[in-house]
Amino acid sequence: MIDQRMLPAKLEIVSYDDPLQIARAIREMVVRGAPAIGVAGAYGMALAGLKSSAVTREALLRDLQLAAKALRDSRPTAVNLGWAVDLMLNFATRAQGNIAEVKQQLLNEAHRMADEDVEINRRMAAHGAALIQDGDTIIHHCNTGALATVDWGTALGVIRMAHENGKRVHVLVDETRPRLQGARLTAWELGEYGIPYEIISDNAAGYFLHSGQVQKVLYGADRVAANGDVANKIGSYMLALAAHDNDVPVYSVFPISTVDLSMPNGEDIAIEERSPDEVLNIQVNGEYVAPQGALARNPAFDITPHRLLTGLVTENGVVYPPFSINLPNVVHPPEL
Amino acid sequence: MIDQRMLPAKLEIVSYDDPLQIARAIREMVVRGAPAIGVAGAYGMALAGLKSSAVTREALLRDLQLAAKALRDSRPTAVNLGWAVDLMLNFATRAQGNIAEVKQQLLNEAHRMADEDVEINRRMAAHGAALIQDGDTIIHHCNTGALATVDWGTALGVIRMAHENGKRVHVLVDETRPRLQGARLTAWELGEYGIPYEIISDNAAGYFLHSGQVQKVLYGADRVAANGDVANKIGSYMLALAAHDNDVPVYSVFPISTVDLSMPNGEDIAIEERSPDEVLNIQVNGEYVAPQGALARNPAFDITPHRLLTGLVTENGVVYPPFSINLPNVVHPPEL
Repeated sequence: MIDQRMLPAKLEIVSYDDPLQIARAIREMVVRGAPAIGVAGAYGMALAGLKSSAVTREALLRDLQLAAKALRDSRPTAVNLGWAVDLMLNFATRAQGNIAEVKQQLLNEAHRMADEDVEINRRMAAHGAALIQDGDTIIHHCNTGALATVDWGTALGVIRMAHENGKRVHVLVDETRPRLQGARLTAWELGEYGIPYEIISDNAAGYFLHSGQVQKVLYGADRVAANGDVANKIGSYMLALAAHDNDVPVYSVFPISTVDLSMPNGEDIAIEERSPDEVLNIQVNGEYVAPQGALARNPAFDITPHRLLTGLVTENGVVYPPFSINLPNVVHPPEL
Repeated sequence: MIDQRMLPAKLEIVSYDDPLQIARAIREMVVRGAPAIGVAGAYGMALAGLKSSAVTREALLRDLQLAAKALRDSRPTAVNLGWAVDLMLNFATRAQGNIAEVKQQLLNEAHRMADEDVEINRRMAAHGAALIQDGDTIIHHCNTGALATVDWGTALGVIRMAHENGKRVHVLVDETRPRLQGARLTAWELGEYGIPYEIISDNAAGYFLHSGQVQKVLYGADRVAANGDVANKIGSYMLALAAHDNDVPVYSVFPISTVDLSMPNGEDIAIEERSPDEVLNIQVNGEYVAPQGALARNPAFDITPHRLLTGLVTENGVVYPPFSINLPNVVHPPEL
């Protein structure tokens, strides 16, 4: 995988052959972005199979369960990770054949999920791109592009598809403190695609929204509750509030694997709190900014209540309110 | 004055003897904070008098008018600066005596304004501290402490007074991108006063407000319209939106010199847009974050509409809605 911490200065590819290395890479954000860590988790499970010295199916399943726990715990908020890991576990339980055949099938299944992710992203992007008007200025939060997925992207995939369809778009890139995925990754991707952009401080979004310079707000999702409440990168909630206060539409773009129908609303979603160092480690002119010994708090996600969201863009189409009725229908389409 | 750009790493005192040096120091934010740059502007006018080689009153006034223009233009949004500069100009026009006497009176007037600023700040702090409850957690935006004034502070002065009055307070310090006055200056001041604090990314405020961990939001003001709309450091608007959405009270704290009754509302207040470098110049692990050649936008202020504000704390008391009636009464108290 690309070590995203090195971008944009360096494009460095790292390789892992052990599920615990994958879990650490997820925790330390070598790889990030809900869909990308989902597929990384699937490959972690495939590696757990390939590395296992088990000689019985039961022992193999025990090794897979141990790896599943380490992988799930590496980022608690993103539902895709648990979803992908559970899918691989279930696959192993049901798989036919001897140990060697099961191991090979697990690897094939991870490859299939990676391919499917790209296909799902293209469908999301097509649904979302239809919402974009020629000439739109769009505020985008965090990174949701090819780097956050296997390829293509979710919210950034929508922007990219609109651009490829010939619509002129301009992106105001939220820098996305504290880890600056916007300034670091989204800006880099937009440069690669030839899409014009300007980086803004997250707290400047309100100014641009109020002054009528923005037509859409787009971001991804790390977990979506049954009522349409969206857990996403810290700052999404304040951005949606500012858009809503100025009647600018807000869309969250995600694969349906992100939806957790077992959560009736967003209030129960566990919010990961990361190291204070992520807030404190920035420098200006080579010097740290905060006083030595300063403390910090660092919640990584917040919840956008569904009342602030205009629509939810999935691979099965755009979902509009009432989300509590329409979202489950898209996750499990009723039989015709 | 303290070169605030060097804090918290170094406490460096710089001296100027020329009004254009003062104008540059204001523009480059050696000194910042609405009340502090007001008094700096007054001293700039005093220096313009002392440096003038004029031999007639008319020539002296012309020199003062030139300096006034340079000083006013150095930060267009802060009303205190224009207010203080105009006050000095009017003072010079009305002053009695010969050239040398007028020059001395201008210097005395600047000293008087500096002393008055401290007195005004203490009165504001006392009115505001009465609003703070023992045990409150307060989100504070930008820097509004002794560094932003001649001494004591506006919003941070309120927190400091509550602390000195024996109330236990905890401050969540908005780091305040892009110039990081919170992480850099407010954190340093709170450390000096012995007040416990934690630094947060600006975009994390919504999370803490929604989770019930915050009882008050406090910030300053750079210009206040007649209806109570407040121009303040970029990000104030989104912070007030998040507080309002969770029924947490928001107070803006400022001297009445900040009020511009000629502005009916905040929509006409000119918003200074500063260099994109302020957004782009941060580093992590010694490396710049954004891709080389990236563009950025950098509005320095935004407008909090008065509907989001619980009260306005001034040296003449706390003003509550309807602000359009109550604020002018506090600026020009009706005769008894």
